[in-house]
Amino acid sequence: MPQAKGKSRPRGVKKAWAGRFAEQTDRLVEAFTRSIEVDRRLYRYDIDGSIAHCRTLTKARILTGRESAAIIRGLESVRAELERDQFKFLPEDEDIHMAIERRLTELIGPLGGKLHTGRSRNDQVALDARVYVRDRLAVMINRLKALQRVLVRQAQANRDVAMPGYTHLQRAQPVLFAHHLLAYVEMFERDKGRLRDARTRANVMPLGSGALAGSNYPIDRRYTAALLNFPALSQNSLDAVSDRDFMVEAVAAMALLMMHLSRLSEELILWSTQEFHFVDLPDAFCTGSSMMPQKKNPDVPELVRGKTGRVYGHLMGLLTTLKALPLSYNRDLQEDKPALFDAFDQTDRAVEVMTELMRRLAVDREAVTRALSGGGMLATEIADYLVTKGVPFREAHEITGRIVRWALDQGRELSELSVEELRRFSEKFDSSVLQRLTVRGAIDRKAQIGGTASKQVDRRLRDWAKTLS
Amino acid sequence: MPQAKGKSRPRGVKKAWAGRFAEQTDRLVEAFTRSIEVDRRLYRYDIDGSIAHCRTLTKARILTGRESAAIIRGLESVRAELERDQFKFLPEDEDIHMAIERRLTELIGPLGGKLHTGRSRNDQVALDARVYVRDRLAVMINRLKALQRVLVRQAQANRDVAMPGYTHLQRAQPVLFAHHLLAYVEMFERDKGRLRDARTRANVMPLGSGALAGSNYPIDRRYTAALLNFPALSQNSLDAVSDRDFMVEAVAAMALLMMHLSRLSEELILWSTQEFHFVDLPDAFCTGSSMMPQKKNPDVPELVRGKTGRVYGHLMGLLTTLKALPLSYNRDLQEDKPALFDAFDQTDRAVEVMTELMRRLAVDREAVTRALSGGGMLATEIADYLVTKGVPFREAHEITGRIVRWALDQGRELSELSVEELRRFSEKFDSSVLQRLTVRGAIDRKAQIGGTASKQVDRRLRDWAKTLS
Amino acid sequence: MPQAKGKSRPRGVKKAWAGRFAEQTDRLVEAFTRSIEVDRRLYRYDIDGSIAHCRTLTKARILTGRESAAIIRGLESVRAELERDQFKFLPEDEDIHMAIERRLTELIGPLGGKLHTGRSRNDQVALDARVYVRDRLAVMINRLKALQRVLVRQAQANRDVAMPGYTHLQRAQPVLFAHHLLAYVEMFERDKGRLRDARTRANVMPLGSGALAGSNYPIDRRYTAALLNFPALSQNSLDAVSDRDFMVEAVAAMALLMMHLSRLSEELILWSTQEFHFVDLPDAFCTGSSMMPQKKNPDVPELVRGKTGRVYGHLMGLLTTLKALPLSYNRDLQEDKPALFDAFDQTDRAVEVMTELMRRLAVDREAVTRALSGGGMLATEIADYLVTKGVPFREAHEITGRIVRWALDQGRELSELSVEELRRFSEKFDSSVLQRLTVRGAIDRKAQIGGTASKQVDRRLRDWAKTLS
Amino acid sequence: MPQAKGKSRPRGVKKAWAGRFAEQTDRLVEAFTRSIEVDRRLYRYDIDGSIAHCRTLTKARILTGRESAAIIRGLESVRAELERDQFKFLPEDEDIHMAIERRLTELIGPLGGKLHTGRSRNDQVALDARVYVRDRLAVMINRLKALQRVLVRQAQANRDVAMPGYTHLQRAQPVLFAHHLLAYVEMFERDKGRLRDARTRANVMPLGSGALAGSNYPIDRRYTAALLNFPALSQNSLDAVSDRDFMVEAVAAMALLMMHLSRLSEELILWSTQEFHFVDLPDAFCTGSSMMPQKKNPDVPELVRGKTGRVYGHLMGLLTTLKALPLSYNRDLQEDKPALFDAFDQTDRAVEVMTELMRRLAVDREAVTRALSGGGMLATEIADYLVTKGVPFREAHEITGRIVRWALDQGRELSELSVEELRRFSEKFDSSVLQRLTVRGAIDRKAQIGGTASKQVDRRLRDWAKTLS
Repeated sequence: MPQAKGKSRPRGVKKAWAGRFAEQTDRLVEAFTRSIEVDRRLYRYDIDGSIAHCRTLTKARILTGRESAAIIRGLESVRAELERDQFKFLPEDEDIHMAIERRLTELIGPLGGKLHTGRSRNDQVALDARVYVRDRLAVMINRLKALQRVLVRQAQANRDVAMPGYTHLQRAQPVLFAHHLLAYVEMFERDKGRLRDARTRANVMPLGSGALAGSNYPIDRRYTAALLNFPALSQNSLDAVSDRDFMVEAVAAMALLMMHLSRLSEELILWSTQEFHFVDLPDAFCTGSSMMPQKKNPDVPELVRGKTGRVYGHLMGLLTTLKALPLSYNRDLQEDKPALFDAFDQTDRAVEVMTELMRRLAVDREAVTRALSGGGMLATEIADYLVTKGVPFREAHEITGRIVRWALDQGRELSELSVEELRRFSEKFDSSVLQRLTVRGAIDRKAQIGGTASKQVDRRLRDWAKTLS
Repeated sequence: MPQAKGKSRPRGVKKAWAGRFAEQTDRLVEAFTRSIEVDRRLYRYDIDGSIAHCRTLTKARILTGRESAAIIRGLESVRAELERDQFKFLPEDEDIHMAIERRLTELIGPLGGKLHTGRSRNDQVALDARVYVRDRLAVMINRLKALQRVLVRQAQANRDVAMPGYTHLQRAQPVLFAHHLLAYVEMFERDKGRLRDARTRANVMPLGSGALAGSNYPIDRRYTAALLNFPALSQNSLDAVSDRDFMVEAVAAMALLMMHLSRLSEELILWSTQEFHFVDLPDAFCTGSSMMPQKKNPDVPELVRGKTGRVYGHLMGLLTTLKALPLSYNRDLQEDKPALFDAFDQTDRAVEVMTELMRRLAVDREAVTRALSGGGMLATEIADYLVTKGVPFREAHEITGRIVRWALDQGRELSELSVEELRRFSEKFDSSVLQRLTVRGAIDRKAQIGGTASKQVDRRLRDWAKTLS
Repeated sequence: MPQAKGKSRPRGVKKAWAGRFAEQTDRLVEAFTRSIEVDRRLYRYDIDGSIAHCRTLTKARILTGRESAAIIRGLESVRAELERDQFKFLPEDEDIHMAIERRLTELIGPLGGKLHTGRSRNDQVALDARVYVRDRLAVMINRLKALQRVLVRQAQANRDVAMPGYTHLQRAQPVLFAHHLLAYVEMFERDKGRLRDARTRANVMPLGSGALAGSNYPIDRRYTAALLNFPALSQNSLDAVSDRDFMVEAVAAMALLMMHLSRLSEELILWSTQEFHFVDLPDAFCTGSSMMPQKKNPDVPELVRGKTGRVYGHLMGLLTTLKALPLSYNRDLQEDKPALFDAFDQTDRAVEVMTELMRRLAVDREAVTRALSGGGMLATEIADYLVTKGVPFREAHEITGRIVRWALDQGRELSELSVEELRRFSEKFDSSVLQRLTVRGAIDRKAQIGGTASKQVDRRLRDWAKTLS
Repeated sequence: MPQAKGKSRPRGVKKAWAGRFAEQTDRLVEAFTRSIEVDRRLYRYDIDGSIAHCRTLTKARILTGRESAAIIRGLESVRAELERDQFKFLPEDEDIHMAIERRLTELIGPLGGKLHTGRSRNDQVALDARVYVRDRLAVMINRLKALQRVLVRQAQANRDVAMPGYTHLQRAQPVLFAHHLLAYVEMFERDKGRLRDARTRANVMPLGSGALAGSNYPIDRRYTAALLNFPALSQNSLDAVSDRDFMVEAVAAMALLMMHLSRLSEELILWSTQEFHFVDLPDAFCTGSSMMPQKKNPDVPELVRGKTGRVYGHLMGLLTTLKALPLSYNRDLQEDKPALFDAFDQTDRAVEVMTELMRRLAVDREAVTRALSGGGMLATEIADYLVTKGVPFREAHEITGRIVRWALDQGRELSELSVEELRRFSEKFDSSVLQRLTVRGAIDRKAQIGGTASKQVDRRLRDWAKTLS
């Protein structure tokens, strides 16, 4: 015997899909499967999407104008409750979509049950997630621009500071501090490119894909897209409900961005050691020790460096979760959001706080300058001097290597050597070598595009000033 | 000029380490660096640890008995507030350690400031985390035991059910359903071993390591360990404050455990398809579709499978965060807890809900039996029959392969072939081959230790009944 | 005393940078640090780059025309030796760059030592790697196009086949098999987009960046770029020698692509089970068992699915290796190539073999059609029928759910129910419902853009035919 | 019509499982699926396993003594060919198992076809892999012991050297250099524990599990285990052929070990900068620059740090490959070996080369001592002094913080302050404070177990000397 028609359990207790089920959901299962703690933050996007869906249904004459207006008014009331934190979530609310529909129906009656016509949570959550991703990516791109601007300003402010350039963390050749900072501006520019590309691919409207096959109603998906500001439509319903590429791509772009921030953080941590002391982090950006009264720790870059692992982990988690899922929607996909949301939160805050930190960074010019004198950083200048005298580079390199070794044994700096002494290693040396052995000369000789010479750095500073304004 | 002595800013506003700082912490930085939302769940362990530390200080005559009693009373009040959810966290509370000390001092006055004598947050958080890990590991081991018991019970209840065994998801040879379930009991037994080993290595008392070098006070660390039930002491203070191996090892063990659960989940999902239909998941463990009224979805195993990626991600995140950190404590380590806590939460709930699901799983014996008839699963029996007739196995395999091919072309099952027909492929066949071609015979011939023969499965069931009781 | 000028150890034994060193490299260290087994496959790119560098030096009058011609002739001889596998690598050859320079100098004498003027291995390897990446990405994009074409052709060939569409691996709604295949064509189109974007960002010329600071010679980097077909120049030398973004981005794009292949593989494995049997994999694409003569295993999709983890691992490895490296070049970067090369090799072969497999895939139309009859896949049609009769969707869903439950209890299919029976659940049913309950009707009603209706699938097939031709 | 009996294609061309197949394997597929380039290194284990299997068959009277002797002689000939690199692999050799069987049959005729009786490649490869893992783990444990011994010897040799201890890479408190080195000895001890536990769980004999269900022959698996030195037997055939836990566990233990090595590497890189210069790496362990003649780079620790990512990637790859595989064997498992082998190779070489590097490390005592004077590392001593005078620690900390701030503003070191000056901050100071302000005092006051005090470090050195001898 069929269950008596119309017999209904109290509202707010029954699942929207309960008709077919002989048992109520186990409480443990209810707790295990609900996602509302995580997806409730999508409510704005969900309501925007529902309003657009409602308008689309109206255009297709599935809802009347009057019904539509009532539903939209109801949705706006729900939104207001959520914004004012007055919305009461029930244990039965599986997710934000069902919670909003449940509340809507409480507010406007059975008419609320018309909203889900021709729609499934599968395309609905795809929509919400895509709007979320495109919005946060836009914010992230702007944040990066702000960080780039701060770096450019610091580069300009320290335009005349030379510092040791490093390879293998060994002093290698002198470079401009501005050149060093601008290396990060280049990285963040690539990050912006990746974030933009990810945004373009995310910015595709999935609604109308139904559960997997499309919708039984003659809805105009282009209209929905226009209402929600989407430049493109998904073209395959099976793909649309199971595609999470846009999340992976966004998180992968953030993983790379965090990698860049981790490199900058590492340098800030190194530079603020007592040993390097190239910079002073502002007191307001450091914290102390509960035990050691003298400590001033570079917590901010340390945390940024640490969070890099966290974002990498989210990327790996997402990719693994998606591996080998058959089409189309599978519940595994619910696990996409904790990773996605946290990746955005952590990356966003990391960029923001690093921007402020870099804005207030003070260079210890004295320490930087002191560091320039050691380490044989002018050796390449000597080798290249010999090349100008006709010595093949490889031989010049070897001669210079022997000079370095000898100076090291003597405890002398290269710049202290006399022409006499140099001539013991090669007759090609004459007094003209001495003017080669200056930091400024070494810097300004690197004058191709991309080199550290002042004129090239100035040119690039001007480029950036234009690009970022 | 030094700041005037004793001049103090209002309590609850000033950082405990503020003395040395010229600026207050930037609000952005305060928000970025605080961990209290995450580490507050450690409060019980933190208070237990503080009480033990207090007793140790008393034993070393650094605190008087009276001071000690007052502090412990204060700590118990703080604990009560936290348990009753009446504790008011302030924006300045960086972490749970400082929040508790701050509140303690509000309650008992400057005496509260004596608690941190000879201790640093570095050894304190190491302690809290170790107690947390050892406790949750113990719970997890018990949960796994419960899951094993359920599997053993299901195996017993379905003791007589034969099913197709698969390799490459192709039917391979018949096995007992009980044998299949017991394969998972083996896996979880290994998991328990790993969790136990991880627990042993976590169960080491770090307090007394101070910030990095040890403590300036003659405290008896063995006494602290005894109070907190630790069988071992850390032996190097630098290592003790920077070691997070125990977290990685625990999460790695959980990643493997989740991998096992993901395999079981995959099978449950396959088995509950309309195509296989070997099992019926209880309605109470499935949910429906917002759009398609007929759907009953295996959400629980899907989510478990999906969460596997999440736990893998945490493992990767943790490992990456720890990579290349110099000794000793670095703030990056603060990022250990979100991964650790979530890994435990997700794994714990996954084991729990799978236990209930497996308890209520119903086997569709008819469907399973039906599946036994196809797929040429007795081919190996034919080959092994030929071996008993003196044919080298490799040749027997080839002859049988040709028989299979021929039966396939004819659309016939192997068990339908006559001796006559078989003899076209080899004269070694005689009527004795027919008794070989039964599912039960095939199963019971696999009678070595570990084989699927009934007597071996029974033996193993008895072993498990004993082990798990 | 300095080492006597000109005193030289035998050629081929001494390191190019040995001048400054007091000891020879330890043999263990030599073995540990050499990369030539891995990077030798870059030789073509390395020689092309050296020739371009040589021409650039000539244009800048650092080499004479005669010297340049001799060097280029020498490099072409080295290339010929390498192509003919006649090049003798020595234990002292640290990497492909040094091996080629060493051999060049053997062939043309000390003049060979002029080639490295104004260049470092740091910018040289960056160049080689970028050319490698851009070339392999171009190949990969073409391979994907070939795979898409095969999928489109299969979709056209099976244009009239309907199949169950799945969510949660439960039968959900009928879809066209062509629609299902086209979902993958969409995925691979996004992959191509990501690979193209990655290629654009990789296609930047780094030579002239020197070791880190630029070059001491007035070389025209735009000229080098033109010779090597690069549309853009790196703009910061520090960034140029330490940037590996282009590798990570390429591997991340491949990880996503492998994820898609793993989904297709999973479906092929499912579809070729005895239980589903939607397809027949060609014998030539399967292998057998060493023990079970009847086995025919879907090894190819299994291996593709397995290799997905391998490529994910390379992504994670690369990202981790790059984390927190200070500028500029660090030797850690040498570990980039094993991951990069293997990711390309595995992904490339996976796409290639899947293309052939899909080309030869045969659909078992009978089995697919049989699968359409079960599982209540027309339930949504009933609910949507009720909506056209004015029932709010949510209520219609619930009524249908009860019908499904009842049919299930009776062991009946939805399509077998009479109007009479349906009317026990709602008076809205009349005989018009029966024409709703057909697979074709259900498919063709999903007629929005992206829906599974024949006309939409046909439209998309035409789009693809145009795009991919 | 069945294929004519006995008609055989030429040996070495036909697959062992070809009987059932209508087509030959596609060449592309043959190349894609073969694993012999990777698994050939297992040949020794494979032959050992085959000999044990042969003996077990003999004991069970499935082979005669004469057959057994002939097969074993044949296998030893194959082994000899492989050892002498005279074995000719054919394109048809899918894997090492089939290659050896193929060659065996060439050498001893059809009798070779009897070897595979009651065995499958599924249990065969499980055996090979387990022996491989247990052997390499034993080697790794010994390597770690050697590394520990070197560290202990260096600690003893530098027994009297004090250095700055760091937290957050800021100078924190003075510690003994020996204490710092011993922190790593602790880490490697935990690693050894994990490797041992992994070895125990790997050391389980799977042969006799057949393809998945067991073997049709009455073999004595305990006998096989004894022959191969296994203390335990697998207890479930389905589990035995699909279990790869032992690989994941081994690689996870190596990931942790590499993490420790990456930390040590980071410190070596830092310590050998011009800025720190705590150590001198031997010239023989560094390499130079192709461009900059003065460079001496810490390539070895950089590569070790870089390889850490590589091993992490293998762990992630393995875990991902295993996710959600249904029982029992799936071809995905073939992808386990590249990750496993490379993880062992990289880790093994990293430990080996770091051992040699640490053996030859020279401490720059002067530089280390110089570093002790700055950074306010005695501040905690002042605070603890105040505690002894009755000031609550928290207040003492704050007073000291103000002293530090003031000294900083004055550009003075704490140890330079007079009692007079200190008394401006608290009246508790008297002349006794001065003897507190020494590095040695600070070190030796940390005298609990695990503290940096000389007597504790000496005790621990003695422990290690005993443990590691």
